[in-house]
Parts: sequence; structure tokens; C-alpha cells
Amino acid sequence: MLTFLIGFMAAGKTSVGQALAAQNGARFVDLDDEVAKLGEPVAQLVARDEAEFRRREAAALAALIASGGDVVVATGGGAAAFGDNLERMRAAGCVIALDVDVETAKRRAGDPASRPLLQRSAEAIAALAAARAPIYRRAHAIIDTNRRTIGEVVEQVADAVRAHAGTASTVVALGARSYPVVVGTRFDREIVHVRLGAVTKVALVTDTNVAHHWRAEVERELVPDVTVVFPAGEPYKTLATYEHVSDQLIAAGLDRSSAILALGGGVVGDLAGFVAATLLRGISVVQLPTTLVAMVDASIGGKTAVDTAAGKNLIGAFWQPKLVACNLATLATLPQRERRAGFGELWKSALLDGQALWDAVDRSAPWATPGGDLPDALHEAITRSIAFKAAIVGRDEHERTGVRAMLNLGHTVGHAIESHTGMLHGEAVGLGLVVACRVSAALGLADPTLERRVADALIRTGLPHDPNTYLTDDVLARLHVDKKRVGDRVRFIAIREVGACELVDIPLPELGRILRSANTP
Amino acid sequence: MLTFLIGFMAAGKTSVGQALAAQNGARFVDLDDEVAKLGEPVAQLVARDEAEFRRREAAALAALIASGGDVVVATGGGAAAFGDNLERMRAAGCVIALDVDVETAKRRAGDPASRPLLQRSAEAIAALAAARAPIYRRAHAIIDTNRRTIGEVVEQVADAVRAHAGTASTVVALGARSYPVVVGTRFDREIVHVRLGAVTKVALVTDTNVAHHWRAEVERELVPDVTVVFPAGEPYKTLATYEHVSDQLIAAGLDRSSAILALGGGVVGDLAGFVAATLLRGISVVQLPTTLVAMVDASIGGKTAVDTAAGKNLIGAFWQPKLVACNLATLATLPQRERRAGFGELWKSALLDGQALWDAVDRSAPWATPGGDLPDALHEAITRSIAFKAAIVGRDEHERTGVRAMLNLGHTVGHAIESHTGMLHGEAVGLGLVVACRVSAALGLADPTLERRVADALIRTGLPHDPNTYLTDDVLARLHVDKKRVGDRVRFIAIREVGACELVDIPLPELGRILRSANTP
Repeated sequence: MLTFLIGFMAAGKTSVGQALAAQNGARFVDLDDEVAKLGEPVAQLVARDEAEFRRREAAALAALIASGGDVVVATGGGAAAFGDNLERMRAAGCVIALDVDVETAKRRAGDPASRPLLQRSAEAIAALAAARAPIYRRAHAIIDTNRRTIGEVVEQVADAVRAHAGTASTVVALGARSYPVVVGTRFDREIVHVRLGAVTKVALVTDTNVAHHWRAEVERELVPDVTVVFPAGEPYKTLATYEHVSDQLIAAGLDRSSAILALGGGVVGDLAGFVAATLLRGISVVQLPTTLVAMVDASIGGKTAVDTAAGKNLIGAFWQPKLVACNLATLATLPQRERRAGFGELWKSALLDGQALWDAVDRSAPWATPGGDLPDALHEAITRSIAFKAAIVGRDEHERTGVRAMLNLGHTVGHAIESHTGMLHGEAVGLGLVVACRVSAALGLADPTLERRVADALIRTGLPHDPNTYLTDDVLARLHVDKKRVGDRVRFIAIREVGACELVDIPLPELGRILRSANTP
Repeated sequence: MLTFLIGFMAAGKTSVGQALAAQNGARFVDLDDEVAKLGEPVAQLVARDEAEFRRREAAALAALIASGGDVVVATGGGAAAFGDNLERMRAAGCVIALDVDVETAKRRAGDPASRPLLQRSAEAIAALAAARAPIYRRAHAIIDTNRRTIGEVVEQVADAVRAHAGTASTVVALGARSYPVVVGTRFDREIVHVRLGAVTKVALVTDTNVAHHWRAEVERELVPDVTVVFPAGEPYKTLATYEHVSDQLIAAGLDRSSAILALGGGVVGDLAGFVAATLLRGISVVQLPTTLVAMVDASIGGKTAVDTAAGKNLIGAFWQPKLVACNLATLATLPQRERRAGFGELWKSALLDGQALWDAVDRSAPWATPGGDLPDALHEAITRSIAFKAAIVGRDEHERTGVRAMLNLGHTVGHAIESHTGMLHGEAVGLGLVVACRVSAALGLADPTLERRVADALIRTGLPHDPNTYLTDDVLARLHVDKKRVGDRVRFIAIREVGACELVDIPLPELGRILRSANTP
């Protein structure tokens, strides 16, 4: 088996690769050494003719892939960024990105003379790291190496490689709880059963809408022991439904070694996931998302919840699934409005991840309007979004460090609008993105024209794009019970530009003032 | 600060101690080396006159304690078992037991010639390990070293020492989630606030009974921002109460950095703990148990739950508190029946832990009957039970390996009786212990006279002792929905004798047959 380690300078690719190879009885190869074997020392070659270095690097990589075997390959920091190197590594084995903050990298690198990159200015290094980040996020798994010893990173890599085995998919890297996010065009029994291991009973939980289209096929392909169906729609994401589903699963004889298959959109994933998190103090769950929103966002990362009178998702748990398996075929039965709503989350991911994903989403836009098969661009947008989400969750599983909080871009106001209007989640998030642009401009962080570009994008995918009529006092009052509130401040995600967002703490009154002024014609 | 490492041969006391000392900039001392400094090599001295060796060991320990400083002390395997060495170490610093299975110890020890202990027979080694186990469990924290590297054990020890700091208490050792279980005679604001760290709001959650006696004092001493009271009694441990409490906490403005103080018995701990586990996907909780059952069992280990129509505790979560703080003064307002019920759990712990705890519980028995101040023996029984529970939880947090399942001794049938009759938990557990003796005898594991000894113990503490009238078909039917069921078998905890219990898998029909035959006069 081939394992490729990619990542920025001083991420630990060589040390981790050597330790991993030793642990697995595999051969360790430093790609730069292979290039040097072609006749010229790497440093000299790069200085003389970088393009030639990249050609030789690609050739050395191709030769390694062709010879196969049990090998751990450490690549140079730039290898994954050139040509189709990354795609070829992904096709040939498991690609693990070692993630490192620029400050940590500088501290680890030590003597600047030893690393050509360190000759550059701090700004140039930061810019290069920012440009490389979305490329590294296209690895099968991304492992946070900051504040971790080499031994700890090796463990994390080994766990991620295990979770990836047999799936060729993106992995959410969470140590022993790592799991793959598979994107395919059918319900694959083998992957589900391999990931679940020995289970006593398997229950399918879904809602009436999804059951209508897909229950028969899932029962035929995945053979659950029992199926529980509850009424479709956010109004049923309640403790009453939760209790009803739990009671039925107990009555069906599920025990602590049983598992739930959660088939549906965000409501099913949240509710069935919360049932799994708490039934008998926690059983296994496989997420089978059937909506665009659920595939690229809700099903990944273990957030589960129900709504209460006080607001959305105020009760719930972090409970990671054993597997997320997206069957793209299910998107065909998605109502037109939900197709469009999915783009709300895709535009959000693109604003966070960068231009490559933004372009893929833009090329997918025709699918948001009636007719049309699933375009390749949408497949790309989905897998890129999944990889982005997996990278974030791997760094901040419980939304404690601010990294995962970035995913709430557009959600602070979006949730409030959604609660108040009953709008679809993706639609409300779209409006939240426009508001985020506006707040960012008011704070002097973003160019005022960004709001127009985002609104135009929403228009291209048939989504509501004008938040003004929704920014009522009732909606603003809901910000007070938002989970993202800390004391009397709100964690707000501001946008500087596509691919450059940041967390800011805004006092609630100031946020209210900005939103109210925007609301005045 | 003094840190003492105790534990069996090959637990890793020296290697871990050296690494820990190096990490903390402390001095490392091997107690055997100190003894040797008194003039004679340890091996020779032990062979010549073991009593003299123990005298010199005690003297060396006393000298070390007297000189103080930042020292990590590795003791010989027997040091904690002799005289008052353990008590003096506990009083002088933090005592950490490194736990190791006999098989692991033998594998690690290597050459038998190097360890005098290995000259003995396998039976003698196992018997010594079994005799030492309850002694090692009296450490402040016990760390499982099986399947862990030295580096991992050092991390675990460091986490436990941190959790112990400032409390002088038993610690439930769960890595970064380690927490102390404090036993005192007041509500100590400083300990609560130090353990919670920076929190935005603190909510007191309790029931009407406990509020009547202790609300005012807790509000004065611990100064919560809000108090939520719900009706007392197991019938209120429902999702309806859970939702009501959650809504009130949201309305009071709790956010993700807030904390709950759960003041009361098992019902409050379970319900408020489950609210904490799931409110905003999980906030901090401090358990303030006010019943004997809750102090020695329910409040420790993070099990939270509510009851549903289908049975007790079928919905819940594992959610560790930041602190368990027992105020023994609250036991004074415990109704007489609950005093007695507490002994159900104490007898259970004693059957699992061994003769020393059994004797302490026996000497506490007068407190179960009206009148009488808290005897010293009860204080000892409580702290020993806590240490026992902490050791078990530290080895098997999520009840996955069978270690924690041992705590269900008496519970399989006990829960069924409790659900069916509305009997108090401790009363039903007492009856479950009698049934466990009977089943163990039927399986040929226990002497038939054990049942009589356990029934007599229940009688001495005023508890129901004859399960026959409760073993109805309805009660037996409830075993089918027990969490401890795996497929069509039940995990049953059998008792060989005091301090020697074991897990057996019994097919449900066979268990039913044994229980039905016992029920026939």
C-alpha cells in the first residue's frame, strides 16, 4: 500500500513518515531523494531551473507509483501543488496532509539557512501557506500537527489510513474515531457493514418524504432489521419525535451493540444522530445523506440536535458517525427548492475554502434550475466541500478553538431568519452570507462590492438574495439565544474575500445597530 | 510537591517516575535506593530479614517526606501495603497507583531471575496481585498502564496530579477529563470555582426535597446565577422534566461556557447531568450528591440518563463532571429509608472491592437505624467506595471492556424489581445482590451459604432481604429490555466470595429458569 504525506515546510513529513514506515514494516521514501538520484542535488536544481525540478519530481513520483509495494512517501512541500501530482497520488493510495500553522512551522524549522523558504519575507511565507491550504485540504485526510508530538501524529495518521482503507474516500481524522465520507452512486452494503463491524441489529431511521423514494431500495441493499419512519419536516425535529423514535428502537430490541442508519436530509441526520448519541448512552450511526445540504455539511462532523420552543438545535450532542455514505442518485428525487437550497451551503463553503471551490460551484449552478443531469462540476463541488468540512472538523471537533466556528459563516443571522420564517436552512444561510458581507463592510473588513457578488451568486442559483425584509425585531431578538453567543457578545464570521474569512467578536448591541441600519431603506 | 508512584511489579513505577520527574523538572527518587543507602543492598536485606527491610523502607519514606521538595518517588511494590506508609504518603502528597494486569506484568518483567517475585508460582503471584489490588485502589488516582506506552502513562499521571492539586482527594483518572471527588462537610466555593475555571453563568439544578433543606445554603455558599427546581422522585426523571429544565436554563441565558451544579440524589444527578450533556451540545457540570447512594456510586463516572416508558435509563449519555463534591452534612437530612437504601450500594461495593470495605460498611451499620451521628466507619466506607468506583471508571469509562460492567453487580435483577415496584434503587440493588448469590451458587461458582451472609448483612442495615416475592413474570420480562442484554444473552455479575466477582454471559432462558426455580417455595 502507498501512503503519501504532503504538507507545508516543517509539518513533519519526513519524521512522521519514517516513524510510520518503521511501525508498519513499510519502506520509507523521501521524494526529494528520488529526484536527486536523477543526477543533481535538489537545492542546486531548484535554484538553477525550478520547472525542471518539478518535471523530475513528477517523473520520480510516477516511477514510485508504478513500482508499488508497501511504501510511505514524504513529498516536498510543493509537490502536491503542481500538475496532476495530487490526483495521481489520490488514485494510487492514501494521501495524508500534515497541517501546521505558519508560526509553528517557523519555530520547528530552526535555522533559516537550512530552509530556502525561510529566506522569503514573513508576508510571502504566509501568502504561500494560504495559497497551499486549499490544495492540502484535497488530501484524503488532514492531520493537525500543532501541539502534537511526532508519536501522536503517527498515531493519528495510522488511524486515518485505517479509516480510509477500502473506501478511497476523504476521511474525517479524529484518531480512533476517524471515519470516511464516501461519495458514490448507490447504497453500498459492503462499505456499511465493514465500517460497522459486528453489530447485533441495524435500524433504518428516515422520514416520510425520503421513505417514499428510497426506503425500498435501502431495505433491499442494506437489509436493516427494522425501519422507523417519522413525519418529514423541521417542525418534527422535536423531543416528542425523538422519544417516539427511541421507544420504537427499544421495542425493536436494539442493544448497545446495535446501529442506526440515518437516511435523509439535515433533519433526519440531526434527529436520528441524537437518538444514536443517547440511546442506551450511545450506539453506532451511519449517516446516509440524501440532500445536497446534508452531503456537504450536516452529515459530517457529528453535530446532532433537536429543536425546542426556545430555538433551533439548543439540545443535542457531538456524536461522530462510523461512516458517511453519500449516494448521489438520491439527489435526483430532491424537490427543486431543496436543490437550490443546497447551494446556500455550497456558496458558504466556497467563501471559506477559496476560488477553486467557488468556480466549481459556479459551474454547477445550472443544476439548481429545473432539468439537467448531475454535472461533473457538482460532483467536484461536493467532494471539495466534503474535504473542506472534514479538515475543519479534524482540527476542532467540539467547536472550542474557533476553527470549527468558521463554518457558522452566514448562520448567526441565517438561523434566526430560518427559525422565524420557516425558510429552508440553505436559503436562510444564503441570506446570512449577504448579511455577513454587509457586516464585514460595516466593520471595514470587506469591500462593499463583495455583497453584490454574493447576492448575484445566490440569484444564479435561484435563491433569495435580499435579507432586508427578514431583519425584523423578532429575528434580531433570536440572536440573544443563539449558541454562538458568549456572554453579551456574538461570535460573528466576517468575510474579507473569497477564501479569506475570520472570526470577530461583536457586542450584541453593535450587531443589532448594523443590522437595523441596513434594514432602513 | 511530592508525587508517589505505587503499584505491582513491572507496573512501570521507575520508568514513568523518571520521565515524569524529567518533564516537571523534579527530582526522581527510587525508594529502594534510599533503603540501600542505609547500608545493605535491598535484595540481600529482604532475603535475610524482610521485617527489617520494611522498617528501613518506612524510615526512608519518613525521611523523604520530612525533607519535602519537588520529588517523584517510585516505591517498591509492597511499600504501600505495610504499616501506615500509604496513609503517610496520602497525607504528604499525591499518590498515584500504576495498574497492571498480571499477564502484562510478567511479559514486561522479562527474565524471571531479575525479579524475586517471579520465583513464586503463578497462583502465588495472582493471589498476591489480588490481595494488593484493594490497597492500590486507595491511591488518589489509579492509572491503567496496560496497552499504554510510557509516554502515554506519563501524560495520564500528569493529568491526574493536576486534577488532584488543591483537593487532596481521590481522582477519577480520565486523561484531560480527570476530576477529583471531594469528601467534606460543607459546600466549598473555592474548590467549585477553581475546577470550573472561567464560566459565564452557573445554574443550580435540584429537586423540591433537596431544595427544602439545602437550597438556601448552596445559594449563599456557591452563589449560582439561577436556580431551577423540579419535583422530587423517580417518576419525574422523564424527558418532560428534562425539556422543562433545559428551557428554563436557556431562558436564563446559559451559553456554551456556562455550568450546572447538580444538587441531590441519583435522580437529580442523572437528569441534570443529561441536561448538561446535551444543552448546547454539552456544558460543564459539577455533581453535588446529597444521598449516600449518589455519593458512593451515581455521581461518579459520568453516567447520565432519563427514564422512558420502555424502562429506566434507556436514554442518556456518558458525560463526566468537572468535579464531584460530597458534603457529608447533607446526609443528616436524608430520610431514614434513604439512609438504609444507601447501604444497598455500599454492600455491593464491598462485595466487589474486598474485606476491608466490607468490614467498614459493617461497622457503619448502626447509622442505618434511627438516631446516631455519622460514624467514622461510614466516612471510611464512603471514601473507600469512591476510590473503588474511581478505579473502575478509570479503566473502562464507557463500559466497553467488561471492567465497568462489574459495577452492575445486583443491578440486572435489581433494576427490573425497581422499575416494577417503585422500590428505592439501593433497596432493589440489595435484593439483586441476594439473587446474584443465588445464581452464582446455581452456576456452581459460589458457596450456597454466601446468600445467607449477604441477606444477614441486609437485615443488619434494615433493608429488604428476600427477593422471592418480587421475582414475578413481569419483572423477568423486563430483563429483555435491559441495557446489559447483548443479543439473547445477559451479562450477569456472579459472586464467588467477598472481593471476588466475575462477569458471566447467561442465556436469558437459563437465567429465567434459575430465577423461577428460586421463586418456587
